[in-house]
Formats: sequence, structure tokens, C-alpha cells
Amino acid sequence: MTSETSTDGVTEQSFSLGEIPGVLFTPRGATGPRPLILMGHGGGQHKKAPGVLAGAHRFAADGGFAVVAIDAPNHGDRPKDEQFIQFAGAMRARMAAGEDPAELVAAMHDLLAGQAVDDWQAVVTAVQGLGHVGVGPVGYWGVSMGCGLGVQLIAAEPRVRAAVLGLLGVHELVGAAARVTVPVQFLVQWDDTRVPRDQAFALFEALGSGDKTLHANPGDHGGIPAHETDHALRFFARHLG
Amino acid sequence: MTSETSTDGVTEQSFSLGEIPGVLFTPRGATGPRPLILMGHGGGQHKKAPGVLAGAHRFAADGGFAVVAIDAPNHGDRPKDEQFIQFAGAMRARMAAGEDPAELVAAMHDLLAGQAVDDWQAVVTAVQGLGHVGVGPVGYWGVSMGCGLGVQLIAAEPRVRAAVLGLLGVHELVGAAARVTVPVQFLVQWDDTRVPRDQAFALFEALGSGDKTLHANPGDHGGIPAHETDHALRFFARHLG
Repeated sequence: MTSETSTDGVTEQSFSLGEIPGVLFTPRGATGPRPLILMGHGGGQHKKAPGVLAGAHRFAADGGFAVVAIDAPNHGDRPKDEQFIQFAGAMRARMAAGEDPAELVAAMHDLLAGQAVDDWQAVVTAVQGLGHVGVGPVGYWGVSMGCGLGVQLIAAEPRVRAAVLGLLGVHELVGAAARVTVPVQFLVQWDDTRVPRDQAFALFEALGSGDKTLHANPGDHGGIPAHETDHALRFFARHLG
Repeated sequence: MTSETSTDGVTEQSFSLGEIPGVLFTPRGATGPRPLILMGHGGGQHKKAPGVLAGAHRFAADGGFAVVAIDAPNHGDRPKDEQFIQFAGAMRARMAAGEDPAELVAAMHDLLAGQAVDDWQAVVTAVQGLGHVGVGPVGYWGVSMGCGLGVQLIAAEPRVRAAVLGLLGVHELVGAAARVTVPVQFLVQWDDTRVPRDQAFALFEALGSGDKTLHANPGDHGGIPAHETDHALRFFARHLG
């Protein structure tokens, strides 16, 4: 642990686990075991991006959960490798040219997924060793790149028991999605200019889960309405509580 | 009022308002004004169909709402007229032949809508005159035929301030849907054999509401999962509370 602060009833503890920078959010003064929610950020974002922070505080303060967010490989405080820099440049060029970057985005997620899955598995084991987290049920929240890496994680990691995913198309993920069998709440932005609606529907359809619900709201990629945080909190309470 | 019973903390009062048979659900011992939810049943169903009863009890017991359900024209305890009997026969024949009855269904809703809107407007005025209902905000819940008649009601009736709708395609409803501007939660069954998914998406898209969310779940027309009642309760609490 490298630092600790408390705001609005939530304690934030920054940590490093080997190469992985992370933040653990718990209700202030928490003791004893509790469910744990992993939060995966979007592409180009980091462990304390506004969407991650808002959800983490809500889940800890109102749900009593422990929440952990880490920087994905090549994101936030982590070094960028040459292959990632080339990918990111190619994506920017394709978007600037008005072309659909979806295939490149999917290939980049695939490039990051192996390391990201290893990271999350190590982080779950480490934080569940802490007295105020303990070994309880685990949930996952992540949209866009956080969904792409999350699908790969959940396909590989049986400790994850419920997930909020979305804002991503099916590219490259059909196989992994079929191995996701836990309850899923899947977010779609109806007017998403980065993820065609049909591609997002196809990923929802590819999920192997028997218990899955798609929530679609008007607006573009970044515009998930606040009431979805409320839905996510109740979803996690139902499945991890 | 023709009869009164109480179960699990909810009082059911059966009534007739002119030709309209209905049931009013309120929390046992309720006094004073409260929000009112109108529940419209599906085609071939009636005011005490299982889906209506389950929702009404939940909304009254856990939300403190007043809930009123009535038999739609030509349904439940109401007489059937010749035109309706012919329509229903034609629909059954078309479904038995494996053909899509959607256009006939839409035409039937249109046939019933004028009377249904008049009925609901009279019922709202009447039950809001009771001391344990009073003049508070009004919500509407109805899927399938309950959605078709509900869209026409909400387009015409400014007292309705939020609605749960769904399980219906856009046929004939484009104009009325555009006049629906209140918050809507819209239910889709992903594997609905009676309503093609694209038709349901088109009705969601046609709604004039700025605040609208689509919830899709796996399963056929009748298989809305129980957790959607929980979502509906919180939606009404947020918008009518």
C-alpha cells in the first residue's frame, strides 16, 4: 500500500502488486470479509477514470462492497511497449480517416488480454488476503475495452460470479463469450458512433449466460446514464450479496 | 365498490365504474394521497391475470403505491362485440396457419384504443377522488396489448408521467409513440416468437421520450423475468416518488 485517503465514507488505498498499479475502495472502517467487485477501465483510460471512480464509490458506500481497479497493460501509470504504440497510432489514423477501427480495437484487446487476465487473477488473490476484503464472491464491471478484457477474464476465471459488461462488438470474442456463463447485465448505447448496434447485440447474443439482460439507453459511447449505476449496484447485491 | 379482501399487506377493492370492471390495490390501512399506477393487461387476459396481480401486489406492498387494473374493452367480464369476435377469429386462423398476425393485432388494438383511453381517463379521475389514493403522480405499466393501448393513452393523457411498456412492434403506433415524451422503461424478450425483435426496437426508437431505456431478456413473449418487476418498482419510485 502506498497511500490511503477517505472521502464520503469510502477509503481509497493505492497499491502496487509487482508491476500492477491499483486502487482498493472499501467502506470506511470496514472489517471482515465482503464481496469484491473488479472494475476494468476503457481504452486510453486508467484506474481512476471518472466512470470507474463514480461506480467504485457508489458500490463501496451504498453496497458495502470492496472494489478494486487496476491500470490495464499499457495504460495509466504503466509503461507502453512498442507494439502497443504502433497499434494506437494505426487506430488514431484509421479514425481520423473516418474509417471503422473496430477490427484494430479487437486485435489490440486480444494483444492485452493475456497479461490483463494474469494481472486480475493475481490482484484477486492478493486483495482477498486482506482482512477487510476476505474471500467472498467476486463480480466484474467493465465496458468498452473493460468489456473486451473482462470477457476474456471471466471465461478463464471461475471466481468471477456476475458481471456488468457492454459497449463493445463481438469481433474476436465469440469463443470467449460462449464460455461466460455467469449472470450478465449488458449495456448498449443506442446511438453509439463507435460500436454498431448490431455488433453489440451479437456480443450479447454470444454470451453463454442463461441469466443475461441487455440495457439500452439513448446516446453515444460515453453517455451511460447515471441510473445504470443504480441498476448495477442492485444487480451485484442480488448475485453477490 | 363491490368487494374487498386483504392479502399480504395489500387491500384489493373490486369496483364497477359504469361499464368498466376494475380492481384497486392499496397498502393495507392506507390513508392520504399517494402515486397511482395503472396496469393494462395483455390481449386475451383480464384485470387479474397473474402478471398484473404479481406486479400490483409488489408495487402496493413494497412501493406504497395505489395500483388500478381494469378489464380492457371486449376482455374479462365485459361483453364481446361482433367486430371483436370476427377479428379474434381471423387472428386465430392466421396464427394456426403459421402466418404473422402482427398487422391484425395492431388493427385490433386500434379498434379498442378509443374506448380504452376513455375508460382509463374516467378511472383515473374516479379513483383519485378516493381518500386513500388522492391526486398524485400517475404511472402506467403494460406490455403487449397493454403497451399498444398504453401508448395511445399516454399520447392523449398528460396525467401519466412515466411508463413501463414493451413486447410490441411499431405497427400503426409511429404517430402516437412520437407523442409519448415521459420517461419509459421498454421491455423486449430476445426470443419473442410473436414480436420480431426489429419491430420492437422500432417502437422503442419511435418513442418521443428523451429518457427511455430498453431492457432485453432471453426467452419468449410470456417469459419476462421476475427481476424486471424489481426494476419497474424502482423506476416508478424514481419518477413518481
